[in-house]
Amino acid sequence: MMIVMKAGASEAEIESVIRRIESVGARAHPSRGEEVTVIGAIGDREHVARLGLEGAPGVAQVVPILKPYKLASQQVRAGQATVIDVEGRKIGGEHFSLIAGPCTVESRDQTLTTARAVSAAGASLLRGGAYKPRTSPYAFQGLGQEGLRLLAEAKAETGLPIVTELMDARDIEAVVEVADVIQVGARNMQNYSLLSEIGRTGKPVLIKRGLSSTLEELLMAAEYVLKEGNPNVILCERGIRTFETAYRFTLDLTAVPVLKELSHLPVVVDPSHAAGRRSLVEPLSLAAAAAGADGIIVEVHPQPDEAICDGPQQLYAAEFAEYAEKVERAAALAGKVLSNMPA
Amino acid sequence: MMIVMKAGASEAEIESVIRRIESVGARAHPSRGEEVTVIGAIGDREHVARLGLEGAPGVAQVVPILKPYKLASQQVRAGQATVIDVEGRKIGGEHFSLIAGPCTVESRDQTLTTARAVSAAGASLLRGGAYKPRTSPYAFQGLGQEGLRLLAEAKAETGLPIVTELMDARDIEAVVEVADVIQVGARNMQNYSLLSEIGRTGKPVLIKRGLSSTLEELLMAAEYVLKEGNPNVILCERGIRTFETAYRFTLDLTAVPVLKELSHLPVVVDPSHAAGRRSLVEPLSLAAAAAGADGIIVEVHPQPDEAICDGPQQLYAAEFAEYAEKVERAAALAGKVLSNMPA
Amino acid sequence: MMIVMKAGASEAEIESVIRRIESVGARAHPSRGEEVTVIGAIGDREHVARLGLEGAPGVAQVVPILKPYKLASQQVRAGQATVIDVEGRKIGGEHFSLIAGPCTVESRDQTLTTARAVSAAGASLLRGGAYKPRTSPYAFQGLGQEGLRLLAEAKAETGLPIVTELMDARDIEAVVEVADVIQVGARNMQNYSLLSEIGRTGKPVLIKRGLSSTLEELLMAAEYVLKEGNPNVILCERGIRTFETAYRFTLDLTAVPVLKELSHLPVVVDPSHAAGRRSLVEPLSLAAAAAGADGIIVEVHPQPDEAICDGPQQLYAAEFAEYAEKVERAAALAGKVLSNMPA
Amino acid sequence: MMIVMKAGASEAEIESVIRRIESVGARAHPSRGEEVTVIGAIGDREHVARLGLEGAPGVAQVVPILKPYKLASQQVRAGQATVIDVEGRKIGGEHFSLIAGPCTVESRDQTLTTARAVSAAGASLLRGGAYKPRTSPYAFQGLGQEGLRLLAEAKAETGLPIVTELMDARDIEAVVEVADVIQVGARNMQNYSLLSEIGRTGKPVLIKRGLSSTLEELLMAAEYVLKEGNPNVILCERGIRTFETAYRFTLDLTAVPVLKELSHLPVVVDPSHAAGRRSLVEPLSLAAAAAGADGIIVEVHPQPDEAICDGPQQLYAAEFAEYAEKVERAAALAGKVLSNMPA
Repeated sequence: MMIVMKAGASEAEIESVIRRIESVGARAHPSRGEEVTVIGAIGDREHVARLGLEGAPGVAQVVPILKPYKLASQQVRAGQATVIDVEGRKIGGEHFSLIAGPCTVESRDQTLTTARAVSAAGASLLRGGAYKPRTSPYAFQGLGQEGLRLLAEAKAETGLPIVTELMDARDIEAVVEVADVIQVGARNMQNYSLLSEIGRTGKPVLIKRGLSSTLEELLMAAEYVLKEGNPNVILCERGIRTFETAYRFTLDLTAVPVLKELSHLPVVVDPSHAAGRRSLVEPLSLAAAAAGADGIIVEVHPQPDEAICDGPQQLYAAEFAEYAEKVERAAALAGKVLSNMPA
Repeated sequence: MMIVMKAGASEAEIESVIRRIESVGARAHPSRGEEVTVIGAIGDREHVARLGLEGAPGVAQVVPILKPYKLASQQVRAGQATVIDVEGRKIGGEHFSLIAGPCTVESRDQTLTTARAVSAAGASLLRGGAYKPRTSPYAFQGLGQEGLRLLAEAKAETGLPIVTELMDARDIEAVVEVADVIQVGARNMQNYSLLSEIGRTGKPVLIKRGLSSTLEELLMAAEYVLKEGNPNVILCERGIRTFETAYRFTLDLTAVPVLKELSHLPVVVDPSHAAGRRSLVEPLSLAAAAAGADGIIVEVHPQPDEAICDGPQQLYAAEFAEYAEKVERAAALAGKVLSNMPA
Repeated sequence: MMIVMKAGASEAEIESVIRRIESVGARAHPSRGEEVTVIGAIGDREHVARLGLEGAPGVAQVVPILKPYKLASQQVRAGQATVIDVEGRKIGGEHFSLIAGPCTVESRDQTLTTARAVSAAGASLLRGGAYKPRTSPYAFQGLGQEGLRLLAEAKAETGLPIVTELMDARDIEAVVEVADVIQVGARNMQNYSLLSEIGRTGKPVLIKRGLSSTLEELLMAAEYVLKEGNPNVILCERGIRTFETAYRFTLDLTAVPVLKELSHLPVVVDPSHAAGRRSLVEPLSLAAAAAGADGIIVEVHPQPDEAICDGPQQLYAAEFAEYAEKVERAAALAGKVLSNMPA
Repeated sequence: MMIVMKAGASEAEIESVIRRIESVGARAHPSRGEEVTVIGAIGDREHVARLGLEGAPGVAQVVPILKPYKLASQQVRAGQATVIDVEGRKIGGEHFSLIAGPCTVESRDQTLTTARAVSAAGASLLRGGAYKPRTSPYAFQGLGQEGLRLLAEAKAETGLPIVTELMDARDIEAVVEVADVIQVGARNMQNYSLLSEIGRTGKPVLIKRGLSSTLEELLMAAEYVLKEGNPNVILCERGIRTFETAYRFTLDLTAVPVLKELSHLPVVVDPSHAAGRRSLVEPLSLAAAAAGADGIIVEVHPQPDEAICDGPQQLYAAEFAEYAEKVERAAALAGKVLSNMPA
């Protein structure tokens, strides 16, 4: 951490900062310039952070030097990408995962029809929501346990591993039984007790970036899982909130290469929620794959016009094979190969 | 809901939209203009919303007309403000609540010293965190149950009702025993199962606006509590995330009069977290009170330089009386009187 | 325009709104629902907008139905894309333009070396700044007329048409003499007198989206040029300002397909300024091309480490051919072919 | 400037950075920590910035230490506030300026009626637009020179100095003749040639913050004027663009105390444009004054319902005296006195 003193800071103020740094067992390295003095504090980040030097007399600015995440950082694996194995499907590295399925599990027929269609088109995993976080308490909240049962049936038939969301730690046992990858939604990205609980299960987890979470905060959310000894974390960019109102969220594709510079974890992109309408899903999917994403998680429905939620953004199951083929070519541009079941 | 058709929408497309509106039991009112046709859909909002007409052929735009919240809306109480009674202190209406105390409960001495200082200066309630949501899993996470015990002791001595945060539904019984107002933090504003649980307790609840939550989403979070039969909801503006980096969050004081136009619920402001440093807390507090807020929730510490978290933004307990006096005058400008214990 | 009345609006308030709409020669179409009344106003948009009905008694909301831009709208050309011819290079439609060159014209050697490299690699046009808008008045402001002269020399040698920025209407004659496409920078996107002047020259113009301009505002800026009878407008997405600080600007690739739905004008993407560093330029370029952009405008320098401005984001001229080849393949995914000089 | 090296940076990379710093005449101060090395670069900021070290091998981050503005900084006047004298009215320091008048000069009657009303209520200066920047080329663009003539007449009658906007450097002579304070609109905040021209006139200038400009960029815009030898710069917060759509712009009142910490220049607030509707103008005005603003610039009209532009946000001239009296009391809370003509 670097502590930048104000231009007019007194010698006593400088000495006081140095003493406080040393009081927590860290070392202080002052550099006295002509205009300002900068003091490097070397030691335990949390201890120095707790000093709250931002408010101390004579201090202009406190600049963190080390990243606050450790296990999620690129350094911890010396630049080697994490590759997660989900029932034989590889996520990360040179593998591209196509995760597809309905927004919400609505019925047996809808779930199985979609699962068959995406399986036939080469999808890597099946997504589908049994518990749905809804802005309105009056909206459909998901089929719950019955939804989980239908996903299990779809897996039994197609062999596709299941990605499904956990919203409440009290449902964790039911979800763990069916899910091959637990999804943490954007609204729960900073639900730290949920993240720690999931960490303790050891299950692969896909964490969606909060609507206005920085990449650092996303990596800190991952850190909560990793710290519990669960290395199987997948990061997911799904659109951030900006001033633009011409579409729903602003998909932040710069996040893809930046997260890969900062972390060894796989990064997938959800184009459906950001787009909010079908016509944008394909161009954004191709863009995400070309930008180097490790996968796409996309919504597909047999009859989107009759979907209970988010119909306008769901792809037609009947058109999914053509879409998958284009995405595969875009991923190839970035050097990635579609992740399928080993034959 | 108004459905705006595209300029070139065909008669068949218009008819199809009308039929779909009628299929969920709503009525369709088409207005055929020279350039575009607009169709009003009158009926159950959720049913019409589920139609997903945004994606339908010929549809340009779907414009919601009615607000999605009902119990939180101004209309439901015909413009009469909700006034909540917390152990004799009134929150809302012409009452101004000064809620003060430490960011985090750290020790018996720190808690009691602060409680005495804010009580002597006329504070309405005591705030203090026992469970702390922290971005880093390596940071201090609060004293937990021991923290709750210290708050109970501070209340026993000073008579100040307690505001404290609940992060995990599994701690609800312990928190309800001590808290007079349960705080829901910004990161949990859309933790819907937590909100519903709190709704069922009937306890007053203070809901902080999420970092990038719209006012509509904040009111929808309130709706989750109200729907369970708990009318005691306090809204809290605490700063939103913007592009500006010269300070921590952008305190959105326009939210105060706008929330009061939209809802009957009390609106308080937390200037401490947005400011991030002490020198900004007083000007922002005066501004919030002058803008018509129903209260301020502010952090105070006997020795902020030694605080475990957020020291730089906490006010000095010794200077709190002077601060409180100024805030009281600003609240008077907006026609409000400090809410104290009835003698 | 739809005027949504408040739930409790009186009949007199409704009548008053209707009378005001009719007073400017528009027609009013009221729909009286059970909860609210909505009044459609059909007539000249500007006249109705001037009524300022947002503030009128009983009015809840005014919802614009028609887009405020006309000449930039998709409708005006019945869905046919505009293709602009710049000295034989086509911009728009199925053509993909690779516009490359230095951020700033610094010297004869730098300009000619870069021009030769990008020309050899198949670039469509040469970009380079002679007048540079700089946040700091102490920073290098460009070579001005000497810079224009060097660009003219580069064009004479390589045949590449020139894209260069105009900042001040008083330089318009000098710039028009050399530029084949006039660039309007993000900071000047709403400099309306500059836009109108450029409109009157008839020269092709590339308008960069402002840092926090909506797509509608970008199209309105285009409208200022189109209104003067100049149909040769190219839109440019170059990154918007968000809360994220891990990189410079957030490149908004959703803007690409959305602008193409709204308008017939070509849309190019500038990945260099958003990225702020070289390692991000290639993934973002591939993403932009895959998303369906009509071109890329990218910064290239023979020795970026010695560049006067924005060195860290400029591509190495020596590596440009390899980059161009990849971008060409990404553009092909979206059905576009690199726009070169006809043989 | 501090250059933070990557964790694994080699000694050669560190040496290379040191050599590049020294090559522009600056001095390098390396601090070698256990995990990372940080190198302080002390010397001319612009020279070091031009090195573009962000992209250099082994460099993780470049952290600016000194502010890029000089003449606008607090330090340059050793903490003493600038007080500007405009025809006897003082702006800055303990003076509070109430700048009021119509959005747009529409007619002789409207201008004089408003001027008389705000003068009688104790306003400090008269505002009014003759040249109006409009998002739509089809909207009313102001009366131009005729508007300036009407403002001159209003000044002749009431004695109120005039604040009016300059949009195009080619109108500067006409505007300077009538204006006592030249206004630079938010859209032109980074129109650097306009700022420099105004700097050369020596006239007081009020610079509105751009919709998504940082406080640092606002101070850099001021620097463009100050650098030309014109010390009479007033900063104006007028709302920034955020994700919130419940009102027009987010008024950033934290900017007021922060700008006063960073700079000696007066800071005024425009509540009208941010609010977009009348009912929000008073609470935001009181909040701005209580937060310590040096003044308010607010829109007033005799018949807002008939205003050509922005009617819904303009205060009724007949109610202005009552408003002014409340704002004066809020300013008093922050220790300021209404600035009027000396008797």
